[in-house]
Amino acid sequence: MPIKPNALQPLNAAVLSDTLDSLGLMQQAMKPFMRPLDDSLQLIGRARTGLYMPVYAPPAKGENPYDVEIALVDDLAPGEVVVLACDGPTERIAPWGELLATASVARGATGCVTDGLVRDVKQIREMRFPVFCGGIGPLDTKGRARMVDRDVRVMCAGVAVRSGDLVFGDVDGVVVIPQEAEQEVVRLALEKISGENQSRDALQRGEKLADVFRRIGIL
Amino acid sequence: MPIKPNALQPLNAAVLSDTLDSLGLMQQAMKPFMRPLDDSLQLIGRARTGLYMPVYAPPAKGENPYDVEIALVDDLAPGEVVVLACDGPTERIAPWGELLATASVARGATGCVTDGLVRDVKQIREMRFPVFCGGIGPLDTKGRARMVDRDVRVMCAGVAVRSGDLVFGDVDGVVVIPQEAEQEVVRLALEKISGENQSRDALQRGEKLADVFRRIGIL
Amino acid sequence: MPIKPNALQPLNAAVLSDTLDSLGLMQQAMKPFMRPLDDSLQLIGRARTGLYMPVYAPPAKGENPYDVEIALVDDLAPGEVVVLACDGPTERIAPWGELLATASVARGATGCVTDGLVRDVKQIREMRFPVFCGGIGPLDTKGRARMVDRDVRVMCAGVAVRSGDLVFGDVDGVVVIPQEAEQEVVRLALEKISGENQSRDALQRGEKLADVFRRIGIL
Amino acid sequence: MPIKPNALQPLNAAVLSDTLDSLGLMQQAMKPFMRPLDDSLQLIGRARTGLYMPVYAPPAKGENPYDVEIALVDDLAPGEVVVLACDGPTERIAPWGELLATASVARGATGCVTDGLVRDVKQIREMRFPVFCGGIGPLDTKGRARMVDRDVRVMCAGVAVRSGDLVFGDVDGVVVIPQEAEQEVVRLALEKISGENQSRDALQRGEKLADVFRRIGIL
Amino acid sequence: MPIKPNALQPLNAAVLSDTLDSLGLMQQAMKPFMRPLDDSLQLIGRARTGLYMPVYAPPAKGENPYDVEIALVDDLAPGEVVVLACDGPTERIAPWGELLATASVARGATGCVTDGLVRDVKQIREMRFPVFCGGIGPLDTKGRARMVDRDVRVMCAGVAVRSGDLVFGDVDGVVVIPQEAEQEVVRLALEKISGENQSRDALQRGEKLADVFRRIGIL
Amino acid sequence: MPIKPNALQPLNAAVLSDTLDSLGLMQQAMKPFMRPLDDSLQLIGRARTGLYMPVYAPPAKGENPYDVEIALVDDLAPGEVVVLACDGPTERIAPWGELLATASVARGATGCVTDGLVRDVKQIREMRFPVFCGGIGPLDTKGRARMVDRDVRVMCAGVAVRSGDLVFGDVDGVVVIPQEAEQEVVRLALEKISGENQSRDALQRGEKLADVFRRIGIL
Repeated sequence: MPIKPNALQPLNAAVLSDTLDSLGLMQQAMKPFMRPLDDSLQLIGRARTGLYMPVYAPPAKGENPYDVEIALVDDLAPGEVVVLACDGPTERIAPWGELLATASVARGATGCVTDGLVRDVKQIREMRFPVFCGGIGPLDTKGRARMVDRDVRVMCAGVAVRSGDLVFGDVDGVVVIPQEAEQEVVRLALEKISGENQSRDALQRGEKLADVFRRIGIL
Repeated sequence: MPIKPNALQPLNAAVLSDTLDSLGLMQQAMKPFMRPLDDSLQLIGRARTGLYMPVYAPPAKGENPYDVEIALVDDLAPGEVVVLACDGPTERIAPWGELLATASVARGATGCVTDGLVRDVKQIREMRFPVFCGGIGPLDTKGRARMVDRDVRVMCAGVAVRSGDLVFGDVDGVVVIPQEAEQEVVRLALEKISGENQSRDALQRGEKLADVFRRIGIL
Repeated sequence: MPIKPNALQPLNAAVLSDTLDSLGLMQQAMKPFMRPLDDSLQLIGRARTGLYMPVYAPPAKGENPYDVEIALVDDLAPGEVVVLACDGPTERIAPWGELLATASVARGATGCVTDGLVRDVKQIREMRFPVFCGGIGPLDTKGRARMVDRDVRVMCAGVAVRSGDLVFGDVDGVVVIPQEAEQEVVRLALEKISGENQSRDALQRGEKLADVFRRIGIL
Repeated sequence: MPIKPNALQPLNAAVLSDTLDSLGLMQQAMKPFMRPLDDSLQLIGRARTGLYMPVYAPPAKGENPYDVEIALVDDLAPGEVVVLACDGPTERIAPWGELLATASVARGATGCVTDGLVRDVKQIREMRFPVFCGGIGPLDTKGRARMVDRDVRVMCAGVAVRSGDLVFGDVDGVVVIPQEAEQEVVRLALEKISGENQSRDALQRGEKLADVFRRIGIL
Repeated sequence: MPIKPNALQPLNAAVLSDTLDSLGLMQQAMKPFMRPLDDSLQLIGRARTGLYMPVYAPPAKGENPYDVEIALVDDLAPGEVVVLACDGPTERIAPWGELLATASVARGATGCVTDGLVRDVKQIREMRFPVFCGGIGPLDTKGRARMVDRDVRVMCAGVAVRSGDLVFGDVDGVVVIPQEAEQEVVRLALEKISGENQSRDALQRGEKLADVFRRIGIL
Repeated sequence: MPIKPNALQPLNAAVLSDTLDSLGLMQQAMKPFMRPLDDSLQLIGRARTGLYMPVYAPPAKGENPYDVEIALVDDLAPGEVVVLACDGPTERIAPWGELLATASVARGATGCVTDGLVRDVKQIREMRFPVFCGGIGPLDTKGRARMVDRDVRVMCAGVAVRSGDLVFGDVDGVVVIPQEAEQEVVRLALEKISGENQSRDALQRGEKLADVFRRIGIL
């Protein structure tokens, strides 16, 4: 039975990363160039992937350069997170902005993760819609890039993502939990949280780190 | 008749970038390494350019290494924006700081854009003087770089800028509007803003993105 | 007689950098990829260095991969700053996090500087513990890197640091003051501050920059 | 009337670049990461462009991931040069190798230019087929990238290229001559060659560079 | 039964890379910054790994900074290849040079692969000892880096290598064959070679690439 | 008494680098992006420096953009090496080419070192004039950069160079010997060469590296 995304709310990216590491899954944290637009927001949801290619010419007359990305957004279900792979980091394109965010919120989507740039940052922050991105810039994709496929396996900021994978983001970064491992990851991560609480308490009381680590085994 | 800079206040960098794109001017947005010191401030004004070269030795005895940049700042007129080209991004020099900002404010200047670093960030933020820069660092230019020319064509963060060009910056980035195109750009951008408002309203009502885009044609 | 760190409180990174420059010490400011987690905090203290190496395999059974860093933290004295050299900037490791910060605070340490990543950023900010780092990310060092030496000369973000050197950080960046020069640096920096105050006042009154610079000689 | 490519044989990349510069076309030389496999070979021909996108999954069962590139190669006419745009420099893919080169030679093609990698370097050198590339590597495109369009405008190593543009490569690099300007460029370049010969002779006789430049005006 | 390295002599890096890809092993080719000192030499052998860390101080008095690397070289057996992981590409250190090559040849070693730099390039080329490296430079490791471990899992130019893995290099690059897969890889690669020969023959006869690919299925 | 440059002929870049290291001069080898046009040529001579700045506009009417570089070349004395600092590595400019090389040879100059690009590579190789550069490209400096100063301290590929410093280049790279240290450096380097010969002989006889290093102390 798949995990309900809100089971991840007590967790954080660091604990999830450590837990994935402990299972030998060491490539699940996106690279640090990925930053939240609003670092007070937690992003949790199941991925819906979109894959971009670079283009260097305006669209042909009558052609809709946004067709695949419109179809992806209109197909979003509640609790899903849009993951846009642009072979980033990039300086060239901002595939996400206010109108796409507005449409996604209307479908119940819970965030967007892209290794491209994002624009309309002020408005997106006011919406309190969680977005993690590879930078900020005003550049529309038209004539610069195009989403050519969706719901395929992509690499985003160094991590493989498939539609359906759990995505978690907070101020420490973005972590992807492969579907196959999600039950075990979430269970172990919840356990680890309580060990960390004990360590913190002991350290605040002034105990030596060596002693605390020997006893609780968490750093 | 040239545009009055305050005509740009209702606009934003994304709409200006789209409008410039639509006229085939696709190289007008500075690269995303350029960030505002205060992302709540809008920067609008006409460029006054300065061009730096690297140096690797202290200035000769009696030589004033700041002469060209002092002359540029003392020559600023109200509504002008200082644009300092350092072949950035750079780790080596911070050509802008509190004292230059103070002198610029005294002349009525409305901002500074540099692909170099900036220092005295706390004080500049308190002045609410709009600055967009390639990074933050304490390194003075003395013995590291020197402004050797001003009011010449420069490249700053990937965009050609001439003194007199309109410069616009907000949280989404910095856009440069060539003088020749400014009338048309501002007119078209103001039109586009109203289309976006309609799209947003429709999407918030839950309309499908495909339908909204088909009807209004704006994304 | 060594300087007391709190003598540096009236100073800032820009003035210290200029002063070091004036003594021919032009490599003392860390590169601008180093940013504070909380840019309202000043970091002042004496360095305690740790040196990391990359590893590409999990630790052997029974081995404690954190032994050197635990020993460093448990040995901290009040007023010391942990300086962790990871050959950064890096995408691979976050050698600093909440538990190490908690243990350091308990020993009276006054900050951490690392060219690696940092995690548990929310909690560290709540502690108001000054940290300057090369980025943010959730990745534990276990199986990725290991501290192999401490209290040795390291390079951190382009600056040589030895245990005992004074480290100063504020929103403009991190500056390292070699022990040999600290008396002279602090004395000259305090003098320079007052010259800057005069310049600022004159510029705010609308005096020309050229005149102010000619009279006071500070920019 | 279009230029016959063999009219370019007496020319070289440096003279062509200077001539394009003199007409204000300053973005026509590919970036220096582009190097010839055999620097004794001259490449001359008309471009046929191919555009790649990254993929991160194996092709679907029964799908031919090479279909567009096979069609491009089978459609080559004598005197044409394949130009493959991979958003390079890249470490990920080698879109060109021995079998494609063999097929191209059979159609009379005169070279390949790609900002991707190239493989089967030994065999291609033995064929004396001119190839300029962004590097060397064994990685097939299958599962890593896919040519999705051809005969469209592309950017390759910083230069815009359209099918039909003249492409010239020698040990100094690759230059692209837009069709509209080719008559004038070739005429002026041939003229410049003779001025250079005079300068060289004068310098070899020991004349001062200042005098030679004053007289002939070429450097 | 393990493969005898000389069974790989008829192969090449491209065929091995394709074969590894076909088994889902897509991370086995080192990045293209790795180049041979002599591109006419084939490198084949079993890896012996060494792992470097950066240091920023001269060795302590009486300390031998080369102890681990001397031990590795003195322990080499015939048919082994030294693999030195320096977290490259790097500008800082050349861990390999003539004397180490001379000692390795004396032990029967068949090559060196390092993501660091190499020096004494002229002499090593005269020895016809196969070396693939991340660049060329004169900088000794003393005071800059130190080999701290050997015969551990390392990453070298993007590929995981363990002592005992087969390493193959030619002008197209370096490929690592994990021990577990070596029997199957070599068998399949030898088969693929013959298919390529048929394709080449057909293409040279002028057959369309589409037809050849449909019939033989190799590109 | 200054060293005669031809006293350096028996030396090589690796031995000079080690010797400079042994005197604590660890920043004297240029970065490895600097490569010789012809790796069989040794470059030896005394530096004459030129310093470039970027420009982004064509020269004004009647202005000679080459004036400083012409003056430098016409002023060269026998045994001097031109060192051109372009803040490289760069993709933008090739400040050196055949005509400058021809003029330099006529004055008795013995080489050129630049962190910019070089053009007319075929002709320069035929002249057997030693050139070490940051890359190859056809781009003239006119409208892109300008030499604005000469015989000043510059940084070239990471090394400080002043006119008069000894410059040595071979296939392993470029090393700069500060004038103050040249007597001692050359004397010690010549001594080290003989120790290396003994080590090589012993290793070729099959002696263990550990024994050879213990006895002769050279690696």
